[in-house]
Amino acid sequence: MTHQASDSHAALLTETGDYLHRQIPLSRAMGVRVQTYDGETLTLTAPAELNHNHLGTAFGGSLSALATLAGYGLLWLELGNRDSHIVIRRSRIHYLRPVHGELRAVCLRPAAEVVTAFKAKFARVGKARITLGVTVEADGGNGVEFEGEYVALR
Amino acid sequence: MTHQASDSHAALLTETGDYLHRQIPLSRAMGVRVQTYDGETLTLTAPAELNHNHLGTAFGGSLSALATLAGYGLLWLELGNRDSHIVIRRSRIHYLRPVHGELRAVCLRPAAEVVTAFKAKFARVGKARITLGVTVEADGGNGVEFEGEYVALR
Repeated sequence: MTHQASDSHAALLTETGDYLHRQIPLSRAMGVRVQTYDGETLTLTAPAELNHNHLGTAFGGSLSALATLAGYGLLWLELGNRDSHIVIRRSRIHYLRPVHGELRAVCLRPAAEVVTAFKAKFARVGKARITLGVTVEADGGNGVEFEGEYVALR
Repeated sequence: MTHQASDSHAALLTETGDYLHRQIPLSRAMGVRVQTYDGETLTLTAPAELNHNHLGTAFGGSLSALATLAGYGLLWLELGNRDSHIVIRRSRIHYLRPVHGELRAVCLRPAAEVVTAFKAKFARVGKARITLGVTVEADGGNGVEFEGEYVALR
């Protein structure tokens, strides 16, 4: 990555974080940060101090909200079209292990052909649906596995 | 309900809300309030100002967090045992309609025999599992349907 590309990448992460904080106040209250986006994965973090539960580990509601945001953020970056609306239709989440310390949600971009079909349908009819997976790490493996179905609308 | 019972009921709602705010900081950041508990349903609310999304309706992450808390709160009230730990294992949520204005999550107590079996197992082995349903109202019907599997541990 050239120095210029690196600067523009950092600017994109900042823009995305600012957008989330401005549009979705809970993301600010949670202290969500857009950590990395390499075109394949988007990583969001949130500090434990603002997101713990009664046991001192990550609160399930914070984990589901962070995962929901990670999928939403990935689509926002993928579509690049700031006039599109992205909404979540359904999701399921499995809490496998307690998450200690910082919450770190990783959304993996689906296979290229899935993303291509999603974008083509969105361009053609102004509405398309896609399922995204998000994981949150914990000691010893995945702490959380999340799957969300999102719809993009024009 | 006598005047005294009504006072003690109000105190229980306040105690539950204070407990959530103290133990789970996100519930305070969301402005969660324990509105009613009649032994059959527990209702939690949260203001739209703190929980909206980019479209001005309720953010999916706030809805899932509020639903998660409603199930948690119902078990906390049911068990009455402040030494038990309640954790969520998995959940699924379906966003059926946009939720405008205040978020209002209603957790319905399961059938009496389900609750009795859950409490008996918890008393016997110190660990029991139960599935709870939560809905959030919207104009025209349910805005959200949530189902969560919780585990109580001693």
